[in-house]
Amino acid sequence: MSNSALLTDLYELTMLAGYFEKGMHEKPATFDLFFREAPYLGSYAVFAGLEPALDYLSKLHFSDRDLEYLASLGIFKPSFLAYLKNFRFHGRVIAPAEGTVVFGHEPLLTVEGSLAEAQFVETALLNIINFQTLVATKAARLTVTAGDGEVIEFGLRRAQGPDGGLSVARAAYIGGVRSTSNVLAGQQFGIPVKGTHAHSWIMSFPDELTAFRAYADCFPDSCVLLVDTYDTLESGLPNAITVARELREKGHELLGIRLDSGDLAYLSREARRRFDVAGFAEVKIVASNDLDEHVIHSLRDEGGRIDIYGVGTRLATCAGEGGGALGGVYKLVRFDDQPRLKVTSDSSKSTIPDRKHVLRAIDPDGNFSMDILCREHEQLRPGDLLYDPTNPARRKQLPADIRLENLRQTVMEDGCILHDAPSLDQLADHCAAQLKRMPAGSLRLINPHRYKVAISPQLHQLREELIHQHERLDRLCPDESK
Amino acid sequence: MSNSALLTDLYELTMLAGYFEKGMHEKPATFDLFFREAPYLGSYAVFAGLEPALDYLSKLHFSDRDLEYLASLGIFKPSFLAYLKNFRFHGRVIAPAEGTVVFGHEPLLTVEGSLAEAQFVETALLNIINFQTLVATKAARLTVTAGDGEVIEFGLRRAQGPDGGLSVARAAYIGGVRSTSNVLAGQQFGIPVKGTHAHSWIMSFPDELTAFRAYADCFPDSCVLLVDTYDTLESGLPNAITVARELREKGHELLGIRLDSGDLAYLSREARRRFDVAGFAEVKIVASNDLDEHVIHSLRDEGGRIDIYGVGTRLATCAGEGGGALGGVYKLVRFDDQPRLKVTSDSSKSTIPDRKHVLRAIDPDGNFSMDILCREHEQLRPGDLLYDPTNPARRKQLPADIRLENLRQTVMEDGCILHDAPSLDQLADHCAAQLKRMPAGSLRLINPHRYKVAISPQLHQLREELIHQHERLDRLCPDESK
Repeated sequence: MSNSALLTDLYELTMLAGYFEKGMHEKPATFDLFFREAPYLGSYAVFAGLEPALDYLSKLHFSDRDLEYLASLGIFKPSFLAYLKNFRFHGRVIAPAEGTVVFGHEPLLTVEGSLAEAQFVETALLNIINFQTLVATKAARLTVTAGDGEVIEFGLRRAQGPDGGLSVARAAYIGGVRSTSNVLAGQQFGIPVKGTHAHSWIMSFPDELTAFRAYADCFPDSCVLLVDTYDTLESGLPNAITVARELREKGHELLGIRLDSGDLAYLSREARRRFDVAGFAEVKIVASNDLDEHVIHSLRDEGGRIDIYGVGTRLATCAGEGGGALGGVYKLVRFDDQPRLKVTSDSSKSTIPDRKHVLRAIDPDGNFSMDILCREHEQLRPGDLLYDPTNPARRKQLPADIRLENLRQTVMEDGCILHDAPSLDQLADHCAAQLKRMPAGSLRLINPHRYKVAISPQLHQLREELIHQHERLDRLCPDESK
Repeated sequence: MSNSALLTDLYELTMLAGYFEKGMHEKPATFDLFFREAPYLGSYAVFAGLEPALDYLSKLHFSDRDLEYLASLGIFKPSFLAYLKNFRFHGRVIAPAEGTVVFGHEPLLTVEGSLAEAQFVETALLNIINFQTLVATKAARLTVTAGDGEVIEFGLRRAQGPDGGLSVARAAYIGGVRSTSNVLAGQQFGIPVKGTHAHSWIMSFPDELTAFRAYADCFPDSCVLLVDTYDTLESGLPNAITVARELREKGHELLGIRLDSGDLAYLSREARRRFDVAGFAEVKIVASNDLDEHVIHSLRDEGGRIDIYGVGTRLATCAGEGGGALGGVYKLVRFDDQPRLKVTSDSSKSTIPDRKHVLRAIDPDGNFSMDILCREHEQLRPGDLLYDPTNPARRKQLPADIRLENLRQTVMEDGCILHDAPSLDQLADHCAAQLKRMPAGSLRLINPHRYKVAISPQLHQLREELIHQHERLDRLCPDESK
C-alpha cells in the first residue's frame, strides 16, 4: 500500500485536527476492533488481515504530496499540517494470530497509544481487517463443507478491482482454499496457481476433439479439459476419454476434466463412472459454476463425485445471507486513563469498556468450549459467574474442568512489529487446527450452535457501574425540552 | 496498476501458450464483453471502468520479474516466455462513454486484435468493468431515488481492501454520488471529500455539549455535529441548537447535523422542525446507518426531511438482491474472419455472433425507446422485424418515428487511446443526462419496465444459420454413446 496515509475517512483527519488544537492528542487512548454478529449467519469468523494491518501501521506517514493535498482542502491550519509531517504510529497492538477462530463481541485488535494515533488508524484497519476476515471466514466455510474435496479460488474477474482480487486470494488461502487462478497472487504470496482453458479455446478450433488434442499436446502433464462447451455427455466426456487414451499411449496421464454447467451432481457421477470404466480412475473431476458452501453441501449430499470445487464470484464477493460485509467496528474503550463506554438507548448494544483479555476455555479433550472477556489483572476461578454480553440476565458458572488460554498477544509495541511474519502456510495450518477444535454444532451451515462468549464478573461489574453512572448523570441534568 | 500483466487467471496464460505453440496466436479475433441481466433486479446498468481499462491495455507488458515467476511455474516453454517479453496489446477497442446507460445482451466493450492479445486481456477487463459498472449502477439507483437529496459515499471501511475503496469512490461519482469520505479518492480523482467526527469524538470529552463546542471551535464554517451518541431528541438536538446559536453569535453558521441511528424519518422531521423554530432553516440534515435505495425511498415516502444521505456499506459492497457482482462475460464472436457462436443446450443463452453495432432508438421527444444490435454494414428501415435476443418468437417492427444513434465509438486503435480522458465531472454529467432520457418505468426500483433490446434482421439470420449449422454437424457426427 503506497501512499496509504490518505487511505482514510476525512473525519479521522478533522478529529485529529480537533484533538491537536484542543491539546488532547497526546492523551492515552485504547480502542477495540470487534464485530457483533458473525457473518453468513454462522457462529464464527476466521481472523485475517493482521500482517497487512501491521504493515500499514509501521509505514504510516504523510508525504509532502499528501500534505499539499490536505492544505488544498482549505480546512486545516498550517500548525496542524506541520504536526502531520512527523506523524507516525508509535502505539501498541494486541491481536490473535491470523487464522484464529473468533466470535462476536470479543476484541480482535486492541490499539493503544496517543488519542491521535489510535483514532487516526481506524478506517484503514477496518478496511483491511473487515474484508480479509470476511473472506477467510467464507473460505473456511467452503473448505469445511468440501470435506476431502479441495477448493480453488477463481474469483478475480468478479472481485472489487485488482487489489480486491489479491486480498481475496490471500485471505482465502488462510481459510483453507488451496490454490487460486490469480497469477499475481501466486507471484506476491506464493499461493499455488491453477487453470487450464476457457470455452473460447474450444471455439477457436474446428471441433472439440481437435481443441482437446491441441491442449493436451501443449500441456501433456497438467491437462484439465473443459467438457461442457457443446454437450457434456454426448461430446465432452467421450472426447476427453479419447484424449486420455491418446495421452497414455504417449506416456502421459490426463489430469482432469472440468464441469462448468448443468446438473453437477449427476454429471460428476456419470463422468466418474465413465472414466473408471475406461480405466482412468485417477482423472480428477473439477466443478465450477456459481458454487458456494450451500451448493457444495447439496452436491456432496446427492453423492456427487467432485474432487475439486472451483469457487469464484461467491467467494470473491463474500456472497450469501449475512455476507457482503463484516460489520466490524472500532470503539473507544479507555481514554485519559479512565474506562469509557458508549451507552445507547438499547443497553445490549453498549460497548464493553476498558482493556481486557480474551480467554479461551479449553475442555479436557482439548476442544474449545467458550470464550471469556475479563479485566486485565483479573483471576478467574471455577464457579465465577459469567455474563452474556448482550443480556446480563443470562449467566452461567465457570466450569471446573476447563483450562484457560490467552487468545491474543502484543504484536506491536512502540510502532514496531514484534514478530517475523509467519508464512501463509503456517497461518492456514493454524486455521485448520482451530477449526478441528470447534464444537461440531458450531460449524453447521444453517442454524449453528451459538458458541458462548461471556463477560467476567469484574468486567460485568465495571460495565454496570458505568451504565449507572451515565443514567445518574442523565437524571441530574435533565434536558430543558423534557 | 503497477505490475498488472500478472493480474490475470492462469488459464489466459496457458491458452496463450497453446495458441502460440499451435501458430494460431496471430489470427484475428473479436470478443464482446457483455452482461445478460442488469444488476439489482433493475432494468439497466451504468457503464463505467473504461478509462482504467484503457490504461491497463496501453501499459500491458511483462516485466523481467513477471517472466521469472512464470518460468518458475515449470509449465511454460522458453520460446513462449521469450515471446511474452515483447507482448503488448496492439488491438482495437469499441465502447460507449463511461456513464452511458446500458442493457443486457448488448456488447459494452468489443475487443479486436490477434487471438493472443484479445484473449489474454479477458480477466483484467472483466475485473475492472464488472465492478466499476456495478458500483456506478448502484450510485445511479441511489441518486435517482434521493431526488433533490444529495448522496455521499462513506464505504471505505467496508470495501474490498484499499483499492476496492478507491474504485468505489470513482465509479460512484460517475453514477451521481457527489462526494466521498475517502481522502485518497479525493487526492487521486479530485472528488470532493466530506466528513466531520465520530462517536469517539463525543466520548473523548466530559459531555456532549463540550464536545460539540470544541468541534465548532475548530471548524466553525464546516461544522456538522453527530447528534445520536447519547440521545438524539433529549440531548443531541438541544445541544446542537445551543452550539448553532453560539456559532451565529460569533458570525458563523452551523452547517448541519448527522443522524446515525433510530427512526430516521421521524427524527429528521423533528430535527427540521426544531431547527426551523429556532431560526436555523439552513442547517442541513445528514442521515446515515445502513442506507440503500430502498431505505431512501421509504424515508422520502414517509416525509423524512433529509438533505444528504451518507451511504457506506451497501454502496461499497453493491449490496442488495441481484447485487454483489455483475455477471459480465467475455465471449468470442468472430475468429479467423468467420463469425463464431457458442451454442448451449439452452439456445436462448447462445451468444450473438460477429462484429456488431449497438444502436439506440430515440423517440421524437429525445428519449430512449429501445436498443438494437445490428450487423456492421446493415441499414435498418422502418418496418424491419426486430427479434428478442432470448426468444426469437418475440418480435416487433421498427417504428417509423425514431432516430437511431450509434452508442459506441472506437476508443483504442493499434493499442493507442484515441481520446483525451474526460474529467469525472463530464462523465457524471453524461450519466445524469442519460438517466433523464430513460423511460420512467425503467427507473423503478421494484419490477421495472424491461427496456427492450432487440436483434436486427440480418443479425438474427446469421445467428439462426450458425445454430442450424451446428445442429446439422451434430446430426452428421452422432456420438458413439448415443
